[in-house]
Amino acid sequence: LGWDTAMSPKITGELLRQLRQAMRNCKYFSEPIQAYIIPSGDAHQSEYIAPCDCRREFICGFNGSAGTAIVTEQHAAMWTDGRYFLQASQQMDNNWTLMKMGLKETPSQEDWLISVLPENSKVGVDPWIIAADQWKNMSKALISAGHSLVAVQDNLIDAVWTDRPERPSTQLRTLGLEYTGMSWQDKIVTLRAKMTERKISWFVATALDEIAWLFNLRGADIEYNPVFFAYTIVGMNTIRLFVDLKRLADPALRDHLQLGSPSKPELSIQTFPYESVYTELQAICAALGPKDKVWICDKASCALTQVIPKAHRTPIPYTPLCLSKAVKNATEIQGMKMAHIKDAVALCELFAWLEKEIPKGNVTEISAADKAEELRSQQKDFVGLSFPTISSVGPNGAIIHYRPLPETNRTLTMNEVYLIDSGAQYVDGTTDVTRTMHFGTPSAFEKECFTYVLKGHIAVSAAIFPNGTKGHLLDSFARAALWESGLDYLHGTGHGVGCFLNVHEGPCGISYKTFADEPLEAGMIVSDEPGYYEDGSFGIRLENVVLVVPAKPKYNYRNRGSLTFDPLTLVPIQIKMMNTELLTQKERDWVNEYHRKCREVIGAELERQGRKEALEWLIRETQPIV
Amino acid sequence: LGWDTAMSPKITGELLRQLRQAMRNCKYFSEPIQAYIIPSGDAHQSEYIAPCDCRREFICGFNGSAGTAIVTEQHAAMWTDGRYFLQASQQMDNNWTLMKMGLKETPSQEDWLISVLPENSKVGVDPWIIAADQWKNMSKALISAGHSLVAVQDNLIDAVWTDRPERPSTQLRTLGLEYTGMSWQDKIVTLRAKMTERKISWFVATALDEIAWLFNLRGADIEYNPVFFAYTIVGMNTIRLFVDLKRLADPALRDHLQLGSPSKPELSIQTFPYESVYTELQAICAALGPKDKVWICDKASCALTQVIPKAHRTPIPYTPLCLSKAVKNATEIQGMKMAHIKDAVALCELFAWLEKEIPKGNVTEISAADKAEELRSQQKDFVGLSFPTISSVGPNGAIIHYRPLPETNRTLTMNEVYLIDSGAQYVDGTTDVTRTMHFGTPSAFEKECFTYVLKGHIAVSAAIFPNGTKGHLLDSFARAALWESGLDYLHGTGHGVGCFLNVHEGPCGISYKTFADEPLEAGMIVSDEPGYYEDGSFGIRLENVVLVVPAKPKYNYRNRGSLTFDPLTLVPIQIKMMNTELLTQKERDWVNEYHRKCREVIGAELERQGRKEALEWLIRETQPIV
Repeated sequence: LGWDTAMSPKITGELLRQLRQAMRNCKYFSEPIQAYIIPSGDAHQSEYIAPCDCRREFICGFNGSAGTAIVTEQHAAMWTDGRYFLQASQQMDNNWTLMKMGLKETPSQEDWLISVLPENSKVGVDPWIIAADQWKNMSKALISAGHSLVAVQDNLIDAVWTDRPERPSTQLRTLGLEYTGMSWQDKIVTLRAKMTERKISWFVATALDEIAWLFNLRGADIEYNPVFFAYTIVGMNTIRLFVDLKRLADPALRDHLQLGSPSKPELSIQTFPYESVYTELQAICAALGPKDKVWICDKASCALTQVIPKAHRTPIPYTPLCLSKAVKNATEIQGMKMAHIKDAVALCELFAWLEKEIPKGNVTEISAADKAEELRSQQKDFVGLSFPTISSVGPNGAIIHYRPLPETNRTLTMNEVYLIDSGAQYVDGTTDVTRTMHFGTPSAFEKECFTYVLKGHIAVSAAIFPNGTKGHLLDSFARAALWESGLDYLHGTGHGVGCFLNVHEGPCGISYKTFADEPLEAGMIVSDEPGYYEDGSFGIRLENVVLVVPAKPKYNYRNRGSLTFDPLTLVPIQIKMMNTELLTQKERDWVNEYHRKCREVIGAELERQGRKEALEWLIRETQPIV
Repeated sequence: LGWDTAMSPKITGELLRQLRQAMRNCKYFSEPIQAYIIPSGDAHQSEYIAPCDCRREFICGFNGSAGTAIVTEQHAAMWTDGRYFLQASQQMDNNWTLMKMGLKETPSQEDWLISVLPENSKVGVDPWIIAADQWKNMSKALISAGHSLVAVQDNLIDAVWTDRPERPSTQLRTLGLEYTGMSWQDKIVTLRAKMTERKISWFVATALDEIAWLFNLRGADIEYNPVFFAYTIVGMNTIRLFVDLKRLADPALRDHLQLGSPSKPELSIQTFPYESVYTELQAICAALGPKDKVWICDKASCALTQVIPKAHRTPIPYTPLCLSKAVKNATEIQGMKMAHIKDAVALCELFAWLEKEIPKGNVTEISAADKAEELRSQQKDFVGLSFPTISSVGPNGAIIHYRPLPETNRTLTMNEVYLIDSGAQYVDGTTDVTRTMHFGTPSAFEKECFTYVLKGHIAVSAAIFPNGTKGHLLDSFARAALWESGLDYLHGTGHGVGCFLNVHEGPCGISYKTFADEPLEAGMIVSDEPGYYEDGSFGIRLENVVLVVPAKPKYNYRNRGSLTFDPLTLVPIQIKMMNTELLTQKERDWVNEYHRKCREVIGAELERQGRKEALEWLIRETQPIV
């Protein structure tokens, strides 16, 4: 993500004065607080957030995706990571100290607080936007130094944010069985079966994508993520949905949820205002039997988690909805395949158009991204982008989270590498694809690096591995070729992808960083995206979305069964960028088979849609290599 | 490990009666205890233990390396893992219930205790033989169910074990600089520098190999492990060594430790009886300043850990000695190389001898192991074996922890695969090598599996990877070829190896199971030992000890530097077992280069030692493959 605003810092003196006044105002708590923590994020611990939840940006000016601000009587400091050092330093004024995470000399938030606070201080935080596990760590550290962490129910930023946007309440979209493959009623039955198996009486869902998936509903409350603000509490006989009740007026929606006319009483949905989740959960907990247990994700908000008495609370790293959602059913897989075919059509058109237009010198990172969006929007059931397009030329490609802005916008030329990482939401599925191209003659080094990245991509995509293998065990396969030449990339290799849902989803992925990931299973969908970034020069990334499928190797040790990946993304990989001498015969065969499939599947669709130039481009780009 | 005793179970009725009497006897504690836990292990959490510490074996009869017994008023149960189900069921009488760990229906020790204990029970354990982290988990579970875990200072097994062996107190051996490369005084200075850096006032060493390494001393208290029973506490100005004082009479030893005549006062060693570590640590802790911190490994005994007040205790997963010991210095590396050359000489002789003797039909698993030991013992500075030799024919090879016993002993033939995993302690180094051979004509399947294992072995051995990479990220390289054919092995790929010390040592290794391993560094020494086991038929394992060395690939991303492995083990890998068509050219080159090095280095030594037949065998076995 980049930054949209002008590069001049936000003036925050008056805002900080007001916030500090609120910190001393006993309207909010019994005693003044000496520090206030403003994390990124919303009450659902979403990765992308709505404008009304951009409180950290509001108070300090920095609008990157990751960062925590802390304000004390004397100081204001903001912690962010290496991706954002430059951006944060430009967006924040002198009232703020930038805390560069990952540098040795940078104190942790806990250590810094302990070093600046007077004895016996109170540190406040909104318990809705801090996760239960983060609260626990921060609280422990503060207590051990004689301070305390206190939950401030009224958000103090909201108290000083006079023109804070409304919480979005977009129209809800119902998804029929033709898209979901499973009714929400059946999903509830499956969930309850898992609850019964583990002797759980209640389940509290707080993640927005899990709630959207459960009810086969989609919203547009958060850009790029088709979700809506809601909570759900499921018991063995009741289903409570907490959502802005105005959204439920639509008769089709009421019908979908069988509001007022449930098929069975235990499948009757009781609806409540979004804000009442706290008091309802309190009421439920007050009536718990001595053996009743409540499931809640350990990443849920501290506020909701602490409503559940500890003796009844069963925190879990991944909820049953998260696990069920990750394993796509046949209908969802079919939808994802269709979405990827449409997406490939748009990209083939884009690349054919770029090839023609770049020599004229009029295409920029932004106009190329806009063109990609325009072409995608022509495809059936297009809803929007699945994340901001990364469209980057030359050195901009080496900035992993780059997003083109007027100030940084470069023109695409015949002399530089072009990297485009983009994706869309279609009603039938979500896409995420990266291609790296050269429209002139790439250098030997660019080709060499591209080829190592390709070798890594193939090593993962073609890997056969036992059922039950966790994704992190595959991460090194993506790096071996780069490592052999002393190269590497400093990000993970893959993430889970939702089906017309969030482009990043748990609980599986392919990364050296995660050991808490769940084993890969047939039906899961992840990305395979190794890269190489030469600072100040170029960036290479090669990303397909791949489906986990059963493999049938020669043997079947201990009847465990094997898995492999089937690429859903079917967009040619530029042969011009390959040094084919560095490829093994097996790798060449993989490229040729992949291109054969691109030609067959996408070619047919291009033909059907009558997109002749793109079809010609596809045929040209999928010639077998020898 | 196998079992040595006859297969009839130990009769334990009377012993259990006596133990239960002790559990009710208030001589040991203020109130009777309702259950008593008997873990494997000694007060130093050693992997191999001395006979006097085999308490779990004494009480139940089961003598495998892993298992925990728990005795209540009514029940006696013993938990062990899949390797030992058969053995344990044969060694234990009807008084005992075998708890098969890893099976779904088997309760954990905590759950079982909670299900059988009367309300408000006291569960006893010897705090010296339970690690601090295990105590914590068990105590938490029991408290949450209304019971409590109590530390019983007098071991109740010892109370009923009338003919318990004495704790060994073997002669100590001093190692000069020509073996260690660093005086113990310099090791102390290095340790104190790390303590200063982390603001630590005291360090408590409890691991026997760390203490042996620190003082450049070796003992023979535990079979296969050249260690001695001791504790050490190092402060900024004092060094306290706790050891049976009778061992310190030898003038050479006193000279080595500079007892009574230290070069500097802060390098003066104060000696104390082994048993007084508890009271001495108490005295030290009583005099701690408010900011004094004490380092102790989180795997140290609960007894010693809890002496240190929580506010002063800094538990660490790996001690600074463990980390220093793992990175071998130039002298140690040279010693390890020499030890591996001698070891290879012995093995070449063994294989030449087997080739000649097997057709006569007189060689068994046991006699082959004995011959290997005899040949090793002829080499300079041989001390003993580094672990019990695994010498296994045909189906016995599929039992990963097999050890030949008279009841299981098979004859080596021309028709079955032979696997020998063996190693020795020499004064200059420790070895551990596995070779799998066929003395007739291997089947196509045996060759196929062997070749996949070889491919995995080479993939790890030849891997180039960035500095700072943890060993677990390399584990999948060893499996990729097996996985591709639907095969696998259910153990890790490698472990750290000591230098004339324990054959298994932390903190690094190559395993999918460990995520707490420390990054690999140049100078570390690990094993590379993938395998394949076809139950009831054959076992294959291919193990070299390898040294981590800097690599110099073409590029150097972010100046991180790269590493690779250099094999220390130089014993031919049987070409007859390879299906060379399954090898890539790179893999064939690796095999030829490895065999060239075997011939060059071991050939020269065989020549020097005048071992003609072995030399001829070596020349024959190291012909290049094409």
